Amino acid sequence: MDILKGACVFGQSGGPTSVINASFYGAVKAALADPRITAVYGAAHGIKGILNDVLYDISAEDPNELELLPNTPSSALGSCRYKLADPDKDDTDYKRLLGIFRKYDIRYFFYNGGNDSMDTCEKVSRYMARSGWDCRVIGIPKTIDNDLGGTDHCPGFGSAARYIATSCMEISLDASVYDYGQVTIVEIMGRHAGWLTASAALAAHFGAGPDLIYLPEKEFELDAFLDRVSALLNDKGSAFIAVSEGIHDKNGTFISEYASGNGAKDAFGHTQLGGLASFLAAKVKERTGAKTRGIELSLLQRCGAHLASRTDIDEAVMAGRAAVEAAVNGESGKMVAFRREEKNGGYACGTVLVPLSEAANFEKKVPEEWILPDGSGVTQEMIDYILPLIQGENGRAQQSGLPRFAKLAKVRAKK
Amino acid sequence: MDILKGACVFGQSGGPTSVINASFYGAVKAALADPRITAVYGAAHGIKGILNDVLYDISAEDPNELELLPNTPSSALGSCRYKLADPDKDDTDYKRLLGIFRKYDIRYFFYNGGNDSMDTCEKVSRYMARSGWDCRVIGIPKTIDNDLGGTDHCPGFGSAARYIATSCMEISLDASVYDYGQVTIVEIMGRHAGWLTASAALAAHFGAGPDLIYLPEKEFELDAFLDRVSALLNDKGSAFIAVSEGIHDKNGTFISEYASGNGAKDAFGHTQLGGLASFLAAKVKERTGAKTRGIELSLLQRCGAHLASRTDIDEAVMAGRAAVEAAVNGESGKMVAFRREEKNGGYACGTVLVPLSEAANFEKKVPEEWILPDGSGVTQEMIDYILPLIQGENGRAQQSGLPRFAKLAKVRAKK
Repeated sequence: MDILKGACVFGQSGGPTSVINASFYGAVKAALADPRITAVYGAAHGIKGILNDVLYDISAEDPNELELLPNTPSSALGSCRYKLADPDKDDTDYKRLLGIFRKYDIRYFFYNGGNDSMDTCEKVSRYMARSGWDCRVIGIPKTIDNDLGGTDHCPGFGSAARYIATSCMEISLDASVYDYGQVTIVEIMGRHAGWLTASAALAAHFGAGPDLIYLPEKEFELDAFLDRVSALLNDKGSAFIAVSEGIHDKNGTFISEYASGNGAKDAFGHTQLGGLASFLAAKVKERTGAKTRGIELSLLQRCGAHLASRTDIDEAVMAGRAAVEAAVNGESGKMVAFRREEKNGGYACGTVLVPLSEAANFEKKVPEEWILPDGSGVTQEMIDYILPLIQGENGRAQQSGLPRFAKLAKVRAKK
Repeated sequence: MDILKGACVFGQSGGPTSVINASFYGAVKAALADPRITAVYGAAHGIKGILNDVLYDISAEDPNELELLPNTPSSALGSCRYKLADPDKDDTDYKRLLGIFRKYDIRYFFYNGGNDSMDTCEKVSRYMARSGWDCRVIGIPKTIDNDLGGTDHCPGFGSAARYIATSCMEISLDASVYDYGQVTIVEIMGRHAGWLTASAALAAHFGAGPDLIYLPEKEFELDAFLDRVSALLNDKGSAFIAVSEGIHDKNGTFISEYASGNGAKDAFGHTQLGGLASFLAAKVKERTGAKTRGIELSLLQRCGAHLASRTDIDEAVMAGRAAVEAAVNGESGKMVAFRREEKNGGYACGTVLVPLSEAANFEKKVPEEWILPDGSGVTQEMIDYILPLIQGENGRAQQSGLPRFAKLAKVRAKK
């Protein structure tokens, strides 16, 4: 194997999670310790930081602050949602990237993100190879949505699942406290994949959770839903429902679009969602007259690091470290992926490498057979899949009863 | 002092909190151990359970389950929002209550709730005294809103404050992750008193929190607010704002009513609030074009027992125990209140008794001098007031990474 000496740059991209900084930690700790890596840079706001020549020198950070990264939510380096053009059509950005790579002698590029970020990663990898710049590119998975291909699960999902399940258990008690009809609807992230919404089933599994759970993998019928809720109200006096933000009708129209009546799109052309829980609550009130409440878990579910699972943190660190180890050992154009293993009859997790193309621009859905036939819940297989991922206390640092997060100095790299 | 032998009944009323069951625990543990108390009943759904003759025999509960109560959110016995009539105008309910008290030989009535519940408590106390039924009535404070008179603070507030401050720290990191204008608005409970919203200031105090905090004690000017947010966007590229659900204009109109255009009222004649964060987010978007997000902490802030503070739990238990001790020692017509003390230069808290009338139907507001003159934040005095109340880990029971809450058998009392 050829030894490649040079600098590395690490970038964070897409919506942050509770543990994306744990992968950052795993990667930079490995990189700082490796003699083949001559400098460790962090890109401000992902690929945009490289394009804008805003890199931070990670070796200048206080090591004690770095130790706080694994339990610091959000992206410590800043994130972006920036779509690189097809290099065959417009190579402006790529030339700029190559210029920066040359300037800093960047030979290792680590990019931590979801589907769109793996697409970015793959384009950079191909362009660098074509342009003859010897550079190894490794993607590190990240998404609370858990929808990346090629991996058993994604860092960030387990902690979000624990947050959702815990919150749903608590809400379930609160939402049934009165002796008259109460209907509570919780809206959970996950546009096209129902993994996060399905994690609400853990709450019900442990005795206090939603009566009905609707994933985006199945068509949602508003009238059938209202019938189910009315029946629950008659039977037990209250109803608690978890819905994915992405539930849609048989024409593919998001139910949230019924509410907003608009179709605003983000930079990737995804429809902006929101207000679904309130809309459904209003519909239920109209039909049943019950007291209703819509609750949107919103950003809380992806930044609630105080409920991060140890398993998720440790695996996120492992993914970052594995990326660096793979690259220095000659790998490129791959994404670190998780393989679920059995160890002493229990859960264990190891890393493998998969082609970036396998993960990029692909959304892994919940298997049909893990969803109840009538679309109102999930099976035991789903519970068994998620449960190991939410285990373990995070041992977070605190001061005065509140979190103590990492504070990076962010010293600009000079060249 | 006369020794009064007989049964006691304990009821929970109003919106639940993370620690109202801790007061229940403190009271019933003391009552079960006291030879003067011949039976310990829990009322299903507060005063309605007494009126409907649905009482539970607490001595039949599994002691291990009772031990889980202090960290079980919501009201384990069920709650109600039921307003007793003025006994001089309509004494139907009171006669019914007296009948039940006679039936079960209830000589001790403990009622755990907020302002409206203390009003209920006071009316029952006066009616029983007038009717010659020897019965001691003690109120136990509870409200996340922290707006009860006669007490330094209320059980439930500290845990909600810790939840809000922690969540705001986490949101603050997530809400500034991109390099373009982002405005995040968090809506916090507290209709007329800004204690809860003020607790968001703890997040900013520890380095990551709202830029602006608006309490309901001051008039809110929408235009001035939009100017402030625009200026923040220009200065630092993002803005994070915490608002009370009860902010209102100079005419006293809730800003949330601008949004809903309706004035639906609950059983106590309070206007139903909601949708404020989304409304303000839309206004900011209209003015600035920034990416905006409205987040409502909703029920999560009052049931998030996983972040309950040890201080709050211990004080809630103490309040319940103090109520029973006061009653068996001859007190009646009082509410247990907290007095803040200094101990070895630090915070300590003791209980005193105050007349129910002092607490009933009175809303304790945040002092004018603790609010910044321009109404956009709070002073150091406010931080110093709240900080001791959020301290200490709760040591909650868990199973499989999720909460293990108390499950009561709820055995109906027979007579």
